[in-house]
Amino acid sequence: MLSLPGPLPQGGNGTGDATGWTYARSGVDRGETSRALAGLLRAARSRPPAAHGRPIHAPGHYAGLLRIGRETIAVTTDTVGTKVLLAEELGRWEEVGEDIVGVNVNDLASVGARTAGLVDVILCERPRVREFAAIGRGLGRGLRRAECALLGGETAVVPAIVRGTDLGGTAVGFFPGRRRPVTGARIRPGDVLLGIPSDGLHANGFTLVRRLLQEGGVDLGRPRPGGRGPAGRELLRPTRIYTRASDAVADDPGVHGLAHLSGGGVRNLIRLHRKSRFVLGTWPEPPGVFRWVQSLGPISDQEMFQTFNMGVGFVVVVARARLEAVRRRLSAVGARDAVVIGHVERGDGVELPAWGLRYQGYS
Amino acid sequence: MLSLPGPLPQGGNGTGDATGWTYARSGVDRGETSRALAGLLRAARSRPPAAHGRPIHAPGHYAGLLRIGRETIAVTTDTVGTKVLLAEELGRWEEVGEDIVGVNVNDLASVGARTAGLVDVILCERPRVREFAAIGRGLGRGLRRAECALLGGETAVVPAIVRGTDLGGTAVGFFPGRRRPVTGARIRPGDVLLGIPSDGLHANGFTLVRRLLQEGGVDLGRPRPGGRGPAGRELLRPTRIYTRASDAVADDPGVHGLAHLSGGGVRNLIRLHRKSRFVLGTWPEPPGVFRWVQSLGPISDQEMFQTFNMGVGFVVVVARARLEAVRRRLSAVGARDAVVIGHVERGDGVELPAWGLRYQGYS
Repeated sequence: MLSLPGPLPQGGNGTGDATGWTYARSGVDRGETSRALAGLLRAARSRPPAAHGRPIHAPGHYAGLLRIGRETIAVTTDTVGTKVLLAEELGRWEEVGEDIVGVNVNDLASVGARTAGLVDVILCERPRVREFAAIGRGLGRGLRRAECALLGGETAVVPAIVRGTDLGGTAVGFFPGRRRPVTGARIRPGDVLLGIPSDGLHANGFTLVRRLLQEGGVDLGRPRPGGRGPAGRELLRPTRIYTRASDAVADDPGVHGLAHLSGGGVRNLIRLHRKSRFVLGTWPEPPGVFRWVQSLGPISDQEMFQTFNMGVGFVVVVARARLEAVRRRLSAVGARDAVVIGHVERGDGVELPAWGLRYQGYS
Repeated sequence: MLSLPGPLPQGGNGTGDATGWTYARSGVDRGETSRALAGLLRAARSRPPAAHGRPIHAPGHYAGLLRIGRETIAVTTDTVGTKVLLAEELGRWEEVGEDIVGVNVNDLASVGARTAGLVDVILCERPRVREFAAIGRGLGRGLRRAECALLGGETAVVPAIVRGTDLGGTAVGFFPGRRRPVTGARIRPGDVLLGIPSDGLHANGFTLVRRLLQEGGVDLGRPRPGGRGPAGRELLRPTRIYTRASDAVADDPGVHGLAHLSGGGVRNLIRLHRKSRFVLGTWPEPPGVFRWVQSLGPISDQEMFQTFNMGVGFVVVVARARLEAVRRRLSAVGARDAVVIGHVERGDGVELPAWGLRYQGYS
């Protein structure tokens, strides 16, 4: 998914090997989208008078920031994407209902904003009562996890436009007290990268995953090799919500950056600070579900790490001196599983030395 | 389009005549959607702690209201709906690009919020460069008219979900200075209804319109009877933007209610105040385009007034003593064409005496 303002993800540019699967080959040409979007953005420029609020430019970041009156708000919008097609196939809607919240509020968490409200958008061929109730249960669970109110929504029954059901939303957050947006600008060599694990694939890479499942004739009702429970259920697991973790540490002056690893994988770190190198020297072994998906392709490691979260869904960039204090705060709000995954060096890009991988640029 | 929180529009409940066209018969069953949505909302309840902002309950209203820190914000989300299919047929995207702004900011205008930022959402089969540039031009024009910043957006290329292109967005506004949300709660008998004309159909009723166009074999490249320019262009005209008008009068203590007449037509007035009767005694003759659409059905007057704006896109409910002052303010920001369309009486519902029409309830 592409977020604005800021540079756009553009994976699959010659990074997959010739016989393997890349995201571009699965039907998503991020380069073409970026070009079309660049044209749209050039044409859509608007500079409203100051009395209508003052947008804050945060290059490459996840959420739009705006000063209104005496507060700064953060706004982010995203959809669940093609994961809804898996929900449709499996007839299970609760997980993707919860994803509406996760995909949006985690982007708020990436600027250190506290969640406030969410509006959901459902486009569907037909409003099915049981499906909507399940979406509502998931949405409710996500909202409670994210400590976020449902402010409204839009339901459009548009069978001429949508096949099945599309789920999305917009989340709004703010900066309580004296908190300022965490943009990554203060990241410096020596900072430590703390990773908080993901709960599986979250809601990214499903265009590729679904093609591989189809081509491989995978039975989603059975466990994958080495897995527990039906593979379909494992793939559907909802996006872990990192808002309490972010909210617990965003006031700490040693927290220099926050990143939600969504579409774009580890490349998302580059958005935080272009003049730093993120060396992921102690990335934990990716959970089996990623290895299984990779084997269905095959997909190169290079493509895997720029398409999926590979086991780490959220990263806190923290000054070494504040590492233990920040870990304690994370533990106190349930993120006991945060682990050191690397550090920051002079340079640029992202490196995974143990995998022999290197990424440069995010546009 | 259905907006939450609050009651949902439910037209077409036995109001069309047996031989005529109703919105329900065109494929939109608002009742079914309402039932599904009610289930979703029951399940999605969440009551975040006060530190995450305090939602303000504004029954039946257009925008979600939330107190964060020292400010109150308004959030509204909507899509352009099936009007995009007409854009696709005609290969013209600028108008619907502008509609992304109009359909959202006019709902902010209905609570008296000042526009601040918008995020757009484009779901498409394929990102076409020329189409995106045209959408961007329209979006830019709308944002400038609405004095609103583009805070970000989402573009999802999802050919497995969407046919063509779907356009939507979310707008955020606020209440400058000492302004409070205008909710309709202070509406009382004797208040005057000032109507500001629309620019054609805006972005409502297009599921019905498109079916009628197809069944009638209408050539959209030619003018309709009595029309100027191609009928397709006339139907595509972008939603008039009422934010300057609303912003100019929302601080006036005599302004008791504001309403955007979108899907649901004049029934939208009922949302403002359930214990008032809105008597539309001097509704202006609807522009020819509405009469033409009606003749394509035929569609009953009853259905027309609860599906289309019928020539009036925005209503200001004002105390009689402030009428001339409010008119002057509207004129000063370009709404010289505001006209008195009726008044408020004791009772309930909406009446159009000259048409013999009466509506009760909005849920």
